Amino acid sequence: MIRFNNDYNCGAHPRVIEALVATNAESHPGYGLDAWCERGAQAIRAQAEAPEAAVHFVVGGTQANFLVIASALRPYQSVISADTGHINEHETGAVEHVGHKIQALPGTDGKIAAAQVEEVARDFETSTVPEHIVQPKMVYLSYTSEFGTLYSKRELEDLSAVCREHGLYLFVDGARLSYGLAAPESDVTMADLARLTDAFTVGGTKCGALFGEAIVLTNPALHEGFRSNMKQNGAMLAKGWLLGLQFATLFEPANGESTGEPTPATDGRASEAPAQEPLYLAIARQADEQALRIKAAFAQAGVPFFIESPTNQQFVVMPDRVLDDLAKKYVFEYEQRIDGAHSCVRFCTSWSTKPEDVDALVADIEALARAGKLA
Amino acid sequence: MIRFNNDYNCGAHPRVIEALVATNAESHPGYGLDAWCERGAQAIRAQAEAPEAAVHFVVGGTQANFLVIASALRPYQSVISADTGHINEHETGAVEHVGHKIQALPGTDGKIAAAQVEEVARDFETSTVPEHIVQPKMVYLSYTSEFGTLYSKRELEDLSAVCREHGLYLFVDGARLSYGLAAPESDVTMADLARLTDAFTVGGTKCGALFGEAIVLTNPALHEGFRSNMKQNGAMLAKGWLLGLQFATLFEPANGESTGEPTPATDGRASEAPAQEPLYLAIARQADEQALRIKAAFAQAGVPFFIESPTNQQFVVMPDRVLDDLAKKYVFEYEQRIDGAHSCVRFCTSWSTKPEDVDALVADIEALARAGKLA
Amino acid sequence: MIRFNNDYNCGAHPRVIEALVATNAESHPGYGLDAWCERGAQAIRAQAEAPEAAVHFVVGGTQANFLVIASALRPYQSVISADTGHINEHETGAVEHVGHKIQALPGTDGKIAAAQVEEVARDFETSTVPEHIVQPKMVYLSYTSEFGTLYSKRELEDLSAVCREHGLYLFVDGARLSYGLAAPESDVTMADLARLTDAFTVGGTKCGALFGEAIVLTNPALHEGFRSNMKQNGAMLAKGWLLGLQFATLFEPANGESTGEPTPATDGRASEAPAQEPLYLAIARQADEQALRIKAAFAQAGVPFFIESPTNQQFVVMPDRVLDDLAKKYVFEYEQRIDGAHSCVRFCTSWSTKPEDVDALVADIEALARAGKLA
Amino acid sequence: MIRFNNDYNCGAHPRVIEALVATNAESHPGYGLDAWCERGAQAIRAQAEAPEAAVHFVVGGTQANFLVIASALRPYQSVISADTGHINEHETGAVEHVGHKIQALPGTDGKIAAAQVEEVARDFETSTVPEHIVQPKMVYLSYTSEFGTLYSKRELEDLSAVCREHGLYLFVDGARLSYGLAAPESDVTMADLARLTDAFTVGGTKCGALFGEAIVLTNPALHEGFRSNMKQNGAMLAKGWLLGLQFATLFEPANGESTGEPTPATDGRASEAPAQEPLYLAIARQADEQALRIKAAFAQAGVPFFIESPTNQQFVVMPDRVLDDLAKKYVFEYEQRIDGAHSCVRFCTSWSTKPEDVDALVADIEALARAGKLA
Repeated sequence: MIRFNNDYNCGAHPRVIEALVATNAESHPGYGLDAWCERGAQAIRAQAEAPEAAVHFVVGGTQANFLVIASALRPYQSVISADTGHINEHETGAVEHVGHKIQALPGTDGKIAAAQVEEVARDFETSTVPEHIVQPKMVYLSYTSEFGTLYSKRELEDLSAVCREHGLYLFVDGARLSYGLAAPESDVTMADLARLTDAFTVGGTKCGALFGEAIVLTNPALHEGFRSNMKQNGAMLAKGWLLGLQFATLFEPANGESTGEPTPATDGRASEAPAQEPLYLAIARQADEQALRIKAAFAQAGVPFFIESPTNQQFVVMPDRVLDDLAKKYVFEYEQRIDGAHSCVRFCTSWSTKPEDVDALVADIEALARAGKLA
Repeated sequence: MIRFNNDYNCGAHPRVIEALVATNAESHPGYGLDAWCERGAQAIRAQAEAPEAAVHFVVGGTQANFLVIASALRPYQSVISADTGHINEHETGAVEHVGHKIQALPGTDGKIAAAQVEEVARDFETSTVPEHIVQPKMVYLSYTSEFGTLYSKRELEDLSAVCREHGLYLFVDGARLSYGLAAPESDVTMADLARLTDAFTVGGTKCGALFGEAIVLTNPALHEGFRSNMKQNGAMLAKGWLLGLQFATLFEPANGESTGEPTPATDGRASEAPAQEPLYLAIARQADEQALRIKAAFAQAGVPFFIESPTNQQFVVMPDRVLDDLAKKYVFEYEQRIDGAHSCVRFCTSWSTKPEDVDALVADIEALARAGKLA
Repeated sequence: MIRFNNDYNCGAHPRVIEALVATNAESHPGYGLDAWCERGAQAIRAQAEAPEAAVHFVVGGTQANFLVIASALRPYQSVISADTGHINEHETGAVEHVGHKIQALPGTDGKIAAAQVEEVARDFETSTVPEHIVQPKMVYLSYTSEFGTLYSKRELEDLSAVCREHGLYLFVDGARLSYGLAAPESDVTMADLARLTDAFTVGGTKCGALFGEAIVLTNPALHEGFRSNMKQNGAMLAKGWLLGLQFATLFEPANGESTGEPTPATDGRASEAPAQEPLYLAIARQADEQALRIKAAFAQAGVPFFIESPTNQQFVVMPDRVLDDLAKKYVFEYEQRIDGAHSCVRFCTSWSTKPEDVDALVADIEALARAGKLA
Repeated sequence: MIRFNNDYNCGAHPRVIEALVATNAESHPGYGLDAWCERGAQAIRAQAEAPEAAVHFVVGGTQANFLVIASALRPYQSVISADTGHINEHETGAVEHVGHKIQALPGTDGKIAAAQVEEVARDFETSTVPEHIVQPKMVYLSYTSEFGTLYSKRELEDLSAVCREHGLYLFVDGARLSYGLAAPESDVTMADLARLTDAFTVGGTKCGALFGEAIVLTNPALHEGFRSNMKQNGAMLAKGWLLGLQFATLFEPANGESTGEPTPATDGRASEAPAQEPLYLAIARQADEQALRIKAAFAQAGVPFFIESPTNQQFVVMPDRVLDDLAKKYVFEYEQRIDGAHSCVRFCTSWSTKPEDVDALVADIEALARAGKLA
């Protein structure tokens, strides 16, 4: 079976696993107070050009999200999100569980706009009964969004400006950050995120690590007590260096010397990676390239997109009659029914996707198109 | 000033205050374990034809709502509500504060329909990742709704049937229950509510009491530990008999002998109240009648209704230019801007509304209409 | 039956009930934003010589306690209390329910000492793993304590000094504040409390009101968002003026003109109340005097005290064999078994205790002593 | 430096790390719904002779503890623990954060007794105000305790009997389970735990895994919704198979064929491991043996024990003057001051402890003793 179902279905990038093996017998202080965590944090601060940011490592994305939100908000404050936001739809009410309302706004391609945020902020500011309603205090968005779409730098600047004007924190969930930053269409850097937000996460689990997310708190107002909140919520890993080590490895230069296996060959189809690009972005760049090959094949075949994505997730509307056959060779994710004969499905690449597997899928799409089965 | 701004702007019905005075020197056991609470509970059970229901008295409506919800749900379960529901809009995130997501559905005139609930239930039941989403477990609705509208008995039966089919609790917030049950348009009784729901509240604060809401738990599965939850949430009144006494008084026959002053005269405009109708419903009936006189005056004057209500709250769309003048004589509630020249405002009657005050308002509406100022 | 079981077994002081009746037909803005609440708050600020303090009114003591604590603390912070503290023993885990650990210290006569607090603070400050333990951030004590005992001004100054040195808030639960301040033994004033604490409550429920506690936030750092927290926790009374009115009445001069009935006659046994003493303290002074008459009778009879109290609660160790007989005439509270033949019971006076009832009890104690039944 | 500071200062047992490398390129379903998790769960069920138990894998111990507790208790219910229990002292108030009071009982050598539990249960059952106090509903204990001590089978049977009689759940925190079960002094098996408790955990982090704890829910009443609670609390690992794989490996026969390196040589000092003993117990057995060599050396040298422990943690009272010198060669954990000249320190072995390092420590203890420096 060839797997395009998600970007977390196998282990870690070879250089990460190599680093884990190489250091397995080393001894370290526990709970993230070790040299590897410091090294991983420094690498992220350098990439984000945010030397004063606090960087904390946790195991999972839901954990990272509710920790940042709960740590920043007072009980009566809310977080604004797209209705399709991960915190609103896929985390079993974790944010409400820690006591906060999510003010869900209708998203467009998984994104919300500055004007929408401003309206919510103004509604609160002009309320005659402000103590009877929640106070919006944070905006949550994801980069890439749940549909693989991207905010432009301009959009983020507008959101950031509205947030600062109205005293809201801006928090970006970067569970798939690398696939966003590395996309050809992106005009955003990690330094932009650090500059425009109060907090963001750097996803590891879906981006080459065995597990782990880095939380970057750029606003000093969010620093106090964060580690206590982590421990209280079971989010402080005893062997914390396992997280620091993985991020330190992912933020090494991709072209630098590695102790592990080389990255998967790309058959000459890879773009030129910038000199000194960290492994984190280099491997996502390859994944995005493979996804865009799939996208081109679907477009060529006339298959409509549910939402057009420039990154590693591709959402297409397929005739139901071809799905069973495709499913014999490929694993992909069923999303939702569109009409009596069509469904939305997702094809997802990752750092572990092999170009030859994409070759096969492209060929099969072309064959289905030629046979008139995708109409 | 004549007050039509809300139904909780003055003290208690004279018979209630009389009862409080008459019993002030009596001694009672604390925390709701007294004879007055038992008498109030029995009166409500009798009216609801629900001899096995548990009845608890608390001071306020927000308290009643989150207590019922938090006591019934496990952490990962949610409550379904109209987007305009009181718990979703006017309680400062109290439900989220106790850990539960509100799944807000678009309301129609403040109401939700059985088909909407069924869709949410089915979405959960057919989810391939049920552990990543909240489990809908309760439906919250209010009677009357926040816009004064009413569910018909048929609508409630449909909602109840869907809830029972899908294992959801049905909870009716009756902060304004009396105004609903007593409305000419209503075909619902308290016994219907007891039969069709798992829990409902009997509002006192807006319906003749000084303060207080009765929580009626008809489903025995919701009984265990409720008083402990009350105490833990600061909702167990030390002098609990103050609540029981008020409800016992409100559920005495309206025409029975009273130790207090007579109810306000109604100038012969009152309908015939049923024999043995409790004071609770009798005084709401009068309030509804006064509201319908206001409604008729506005209709006659061609003033459009924001939402058409058959109960004590009337929402009309008025030209802004007349509001200041009206506000010199009447207190009413500004709701929201409709367009550059019109606003929605609310006129609200209560058990304390005097017919002569309504006479005055009706005359002024007629005068404004004659002067062409309401167009 | 003559009731000495507690200080909340009957209604309100006559002047309070009179005020409620007199204002019953008045209209007011809701939710505590009315003139009576402002007047009650001003009276308390004046008595406390704390013109900048925020004053909020809530219905009950458990509510007041967890609101102050939850509003002041971040999630990983704890509150220090005597093990016998009301929050630790009698509120069904309300503080833990809102997420905070109580660090219970062994109390002496219901009290804790500055040195104990200092030790907890130092333990945290010198911990090598501060993120693995809760951070002590508030000290809770009650005045009077659960055993009726009092902190001296010196003890409070010491506690306050330790709290300020170590960055802890000091919070005094004044559910029985009046009985403490009015006790002959007390050298503390409300102004002392305001000066030495960050927050304290002024109990109404047990001190002459029908219900209600005033929360006084003297530390401005605790002001922000308090009303939102109140509403979110169901602690904002719709008809808030009912609370303000009661406290405004209780803080009127005791000797001033009253619209209500006179206070209960005291048969010439009452001490001279200070000129301009507020009703709140005057009626507690009478209650304390009656309690001290009971205390003297027990002492004279050789009955040992469980804990020696200078206020309205008297805890004595009685032979079991006399309890049944006493219980035919008096209601008192059984506390706990002492040995095979003795139990601790509480006799409690209040503003509503009649001197002639105390006369009777004193006579019966003397008779029992003469009969040798108290040995 | 030779590390005796704790049992989580280096990576995983070689066979675990080998398994992670060998499967790194495999694809799996996410969130614990994979074949490795099923295999790990089956191995634990088999070892525990509990074929119907639910087994869930989470990353950390604090997470495991609060999940089990929060999932089992209603809001007003408490958990009983030794005052020295991990949940009471070392988890930053995690249990209170999810809303539950810990009723801390004075421990003896880190343990509590059935009679203590019974007293708490009876106090609640005979309370005249049960709604004003928390309801004890669970007993938490740890095996090994925080001081390395063990409950005998008889002690566990007594605790279990009391719990069942009074309707309490019994939950055993097995963060160091293997060191307990494998100790020469232990008469308890995993099957005993399954039989006597409602839930227990099987620690991985300190017992050979890179990270991970298995939660074993033997009482079916605790099964419902557990995975939803996990997800909501950020405790569901995306690549869940990483956990299942580690436990499946640790529960393979120790003497079976392994794809990894052999376990550390033990110089002939090891006892005979039972045939088919799982790796999990075999490596703990070696760790306990090394700890008992250290214990014997201290005993021989006349060094007093803070608490006498039969497992991998040894707490000794040492003269302060030798600690700095020892610390040049060994890492050990400072616990607390005993008097002006002595401190309690901990020496801890683990599956990764090398016998030759213990040889060195034993020799140094003997030398210090000979030099009269340990007196």
